[in-house]
Amino acid sequence: MAYINVPEGLPGIRGLMAFRPETAHYINGLAEVLLRDDDNTLSRGERELIATYVSHLNDCFFCQNAHGGIAQHYLQCDMEFIDNIKADYAAMPISDKLKALLSIAESVQRGGKAVRPEQIDTAKNLGATEKEIHDTVLISALFCMCNRYVDGLGTSANPDRQFYVDRGKLRAEEGYLHFDPHQ
Amino acid sequence: MAYINVPEGLPGIRGLMAFRPETAHYINGLAEVLLRDDDNTLSRGERELIATYVSHLNDCFFCQNAHGGIAQHYLQCDMEFIDNIKADYAAMPISDKLKALLSIAESVQRGGKAVRPEQIDTAKNLGATEKEIHDTVLISALFCMCNRYVDGLGTSANPDRQFYVDRGKLRAEEGYLHFDPHQ
Repeated sequence: MAYINVPEGLPGIRGLMAFRPETAHYINGLAEVLLRDDDNTLSRGERELIATYVSHLNDCFFCQNAHGGIAQHYLQCDMEFIDNIKADYAAMPISDKLKALLSIAESVQRGGKAVRPEQIDTAKNLGATEKEIHDTVLISALFCMCNRYVDGLGTSANPDRQFYVDRGKLRAEEGYLHFDPHQ
Repeated sequence: MAYINVPEGLPGIRGLMAFRPETAHYINGLAEVLLRDDDNTLSRGERELIATYVSHLNDCFFCQNAHGGIAQHYLQCDMEFIDNIKADYAAMPISDKLKALLSIAESVQRGGKAVRPEQIDTAKNLGATEKEIHDTVLISALFCMCNRYVDGLGTSANPDRQFYVDRGKLRAEEGYLHFDPHQ
């Protein structure tokens, strides 16, 4: 049970968004632009993967599985692929550019000052644009916010990981901006 | 110089907001609701103090001084008061309820799971409402995002702390929603 009285049956961030729709509007808008907007050279799957990885680093069960399920849908991969990214993305068959961006996201998760100029140079040398670097930093920072929000208020989460995978397609299609926490 | 090409002369988050206005809109909207909306039983000064304290814990020079300057304006205090809050808020002449909320904000800064149910109980016993607890957690989480955004992209900041104090009143009056990063 969460630390505040959120509506029953709404786990994770959904109960918090129902509790305070005024703030939910802006959090969802930010997620929509960063994770889902088509005007982006990072694929939706790549962006959800960054969100999933950071949520894993922050040990947020709800977020890493909710966004892992969406990433899995976009990337058409299995749960093992997502888990292997979390365990050792450098050893996985993803682009070197994405590895460089995940490295930046990892540093941001530890703290803004943990990012080193060499990491930015590496990403740029591998073809990352300034907008891609900006969005990677802000996606990581956004999930450092959301993970703290979800766990800091002691919300509950369905422990069945397959549940999130099954909902990945629906969540991907409905997007964030018109997200209804009651569904 | 920031890691990406932000417009010249725009330090801290202002350059980033000019670089990517699509995300700035939602970040500013969230700040407006949490820090400035009049429909709140926490004063604007108390909310800016929480933002300042968390930015201090994250060692973000720009944010702790920009919001410290605004807090100073609202609270009609001097810089020493703000610095003493950062150093040891428990010893300061603020309400026990605000101390309990700052303790929650401090835990959230470390990580969502660092918040203990006893801290929530203490805050509630001292009169904190569920909305106040919610907003404290989300303000702390928001600044864990903004601090990482500002420092993770290597932005610059005016090192003169008095500069931020002098601008506190203007910043307080203009608010966040119609924030113009170019001014």
